[in-house]
Amino acid sequence: MYNYNDIQNCLKDSFKILGDPQHIQFDNAKSLTDANSFSICWLRPGISNRETLIDENQCKVFICSEQEEFREMKDKVIILVDNPRLRFLQLVRQLFVKPNTYGIHPTAIIHEEAQISSKVYIGPNCIIGKCIIGDDVVIYGNCYLFDDVQIGNHTTIMPNSTIGGIGFGYERNADSEFELFPHLGGVIIEDHVDIGANTCIDRGTLGNTIIKSGTKIDNLVHIAHNVVIGKNCAVIALAMIGGSTVIGDNCWVAPASTLRDGIKIGTGSTIGIGALVLKEIPDNETWIGVPAKKYI
Amino acid sequence: MYNYNDIQNCLKDSFKILGDPQHIQFDNAKSLTDANSFSICWLRPGISNRETLIDENQCKVFICSEQEEFREMKDKVIILVDNPRLRFLQLVRQLFVKPNTYGIHPTAIIHEEAQISSKVYIGPNCIIGKCIIGDDVVIYGNCYLFDDVQIGNHTTIMPNSTIGGIGFGYERNADSEFELFPHLGGVIIEDHVDIGANTCIDRGTLGNTIIKSGTKIDNLVHIAHNVVIGKNCAVIALAMIGGSTVIGDNCWVAPASTLRDGIKIGTGSTIGIGALVLKEIPDNETWIGVPAKKYI
Amino acid sequence: MYNYNDIQNCLKDSFKILGDPQHIQFDNAKSLTDANSFSICWLRPGISNRETLIDENQCKVFICSEQEEFREMKDKVIILVDNPRLRFLQLVRQLFVKPNTYGIHPTAIIHEEAQISSKVYIGPNCIIGKCIIGDDVVIYGNCYLFDDVQIGNHTTIMPNSTIGGIGFGYERNADSEFELFPHLGGVIIEDHVDIGANTCIDRGTLGNTIIKSGTKIDNLVHIAHNVVIGKNCAVIALAMIGGSTVIGDNCWVAPASTLRDGIKIGTGSTIGIGALVLKEIPDNETWIGVPAKKYI
Repeated sequence: MYNYNDIQNCLKDSFKILGDPQHIQFDNAKSLTDANSFSICWLRPGISNRETLIDENQCKVFICSEQEEFREMKDKVIILVDNPRLRFLQLVRQLFVKPNTYGIHPTAIIHEEAQISSKVYIGPNCIIGKCIIGDDVVIYGNCYLFDDVQIGNHTTIMPNSTIGGIGFGYERNADSEFELFPHLGGVIIEDHVDIGANTCIDRGTLGNTIIKSGTKIDNLVHIAHNVVIGKNCAVIALAMIGGSTVIGDNCWVAPASTLRDGIKIGTGSTIGIGALVLKEIPDNETWIGVPAKKYI
Repeated sequence: MYNYNDIQNCLKDSFKILGDPQHIQFDNAKSLTDANSFSICWLRPGISNRETLIDENQCKVFICSEQEEFREMKDKVIILVDNPRLRFLQLVRQLFVKPNTYGIHPTAIIHEEAQISSKVYIGPNCIIGKCIIGDDVVIYGNCYLFDDVQIGNHTTIMPNSTIGGIGFGYERNADSEFELFPHLGGVIIEDHVDIGANTCIDRGTLGNTIIKSGTKIDNLVHIAHNVVIGKNCAVIALAMIGGSTVIGDNCWVAPASTLRDGIKIGTGSTIGIGALVLKEIPDNETWIGVPAKKYI
Repeated sequence: MYNYNDIQNCLKDSFKILGDPQHIQFDNAKSLTDANSFSICWLRPGISNRETLIDENQCKVFICSEQEEFREMKDKVIILVDNPRLRFLQLVRQLFVKPNTYGIHPTAIIHEEAQISSKVYIGPNCIIGKCIIGDDVVIYGNCYLFDDVQIGNHTTIMPNSTIGGIGFGYERNADSEFELFPHLGGVIIEDHVDIGANTCIDRGTLGNTIIKSGTKIDNLVHIAHNVVIGKNCAVIALAMIGGSTVIGDNCWVAPASTLRDGIKIGTGSTIGIGALVLKEIPDNETWIGVPAKKYI
């Protein structure tokens, strides 16, 4: 059972309390609908009837926005923070998420010249080519990494993903047959990158495909050869990033969006869900639609 | 070689016969274009020149609609039913499709605390976490099921699918870095669900992701955290279902459609091919287009 | 270190030289931005400031278009060809790409009745049913091929792909439940076909799904039951080809395009990026948009 001390250890100085700290007792984190009397919950700012929701819920400990007002309620403790979702996730991660365990599963097949930190987890049936893999990297089972994939620290790859495959680069010859452009480049994945399940990142043709630090990629995403994705971007499920396209830092690429090859997406841009982007997007703009146009 | 008795055993009372039942002899099921003189075929209702098609085909046994008229043809037998495609598939399934064989392949890696019925097939290289798996479940090779996946009876999962992965839930902190929202929930898959190949179903954040009985999911589908899909739905290839979206019973989600997060799709709705659904759809409506609008 | 003789051996009579052939010395192939003094590079025809680019680059050997004029530059050698990208790829493939090595990885699981040429590579953890596989076929790790997949010669399949799975064919019965249409057909993949990673090709219901010679398929593509794709087509990432659709020879199906079931795409057609094709396309036309319309 967790109590006030645990809240303090996790959230440091970033909170205030409404109610009696002695009443804080919880052993699980739930959504409001699933909560019981030993849960901790969070309230989305702006939610209607927030006091009634708290009053009628079995849960006794709530993380709420310090921008909103709450009356004191018997047996309830309200923890006021700047960003309830962020503070809730930080607290839950520290208390309820098991830390990674390191080790390479005996069924994983690793290239003898691969350079792999001792602080990694590589799951069953992974096939890892001549790669360089840093500290605290987690690669779940059934992933396939070709040669020349370089991964920084604190990066996670979900199952069934394929990294470093040969890209789709062909040239028709005189007989209208396709001849494959050789792919001599690699893939560079920096630090704190998350890559979802069943996602494909192709190697570069002559240069590298690059995913910069802090970027998060979802399931079933296709990233073609020579793409460069900046820092702290989100690329969400079933997005398609065409070859040699360059995405700046802090971009948001929504689900099922399609970015044609060879374009430049400015820093801080947002691409809407299902958008089809056919041309350059300047910094800090939001584009939506098919084909995508500037929205803001 | 199958004969009239086999038709009777499979279709019971749901058919009438035009022609001599003694002439029924078949050992294969084919389409009209591939049929030979020992095939059984079916005719789509409304097809033009139906009698000529039968007359000129080598095949001698046809399953046709009782709503259409046919003249008697020498050496041909016409089996008249309410729904030819359904009756044909029921008959073919009983006669030509081998029943599942049970067993867990020795290369499958199963969590020691998983609760798995003895009547399952789990294929090579599957990785199964601490899951609960019911009777007559078939999981083809190379699938990855994380902990906390619960599967009912008579459910099938095709190869290379990932069930129960961590979803895409992040919150930007003050440094514009993404912090991962913990995913403490699971995935509940009920009975008679089919899941295609290379499909991803993420676990819930705090609650569960739920796929209800009788629902069929195709290849390369993304189902995000906390989605609920009702009974007897179809979700077809490359569909994207955003987080926390709730789909009612008997819905049809066509290929390559995209449903944004947090919306409600009413019972009996149809979402058209390639549609981009951005808002709630009431019961029994058909929505198409980008963005999707009501069609019927 | 490679020299003039190697160029001659690779390109035969298809080039002219500007500069001193004795100066040709290279040991790597790079893009212009990554090149060093021992690189060979190619220049895209029509690029601006082509002579300045050559002059200021460390690289000394360039493959350029014979349709463009270049002045002689000290220490630089320009190789003039009809199609610089094609000639560059042919040269690089011969000099820098290792030939395939044959062998079946001991962890691959092969059906005892499969008929497999001795000249194939089958990677780790592949699961191969009762298939027929020709010469010089490469199947990377973690692929799943069901029974009844027939593969010609010189075909490559990237990791995590699923070939021959049961397609999405259901019929609702009187209780609104889906019943699966049996899939008794197979998949025929002809010669010189490339199939990307995490791609799904379903078997036919009664007939076969067919991919003809020379066709190239990218990552995360869905090809449904009974599709026929002609010769020398390109089907690019996240494309969705609906059941029984027939695509003629020499077609280009751009990324993230969606082709509904049961339509015919004429020979030599081009389907634009993100297009939604709902009806027949005649020969040699380009269709784009949602829904797709004739563009040229």
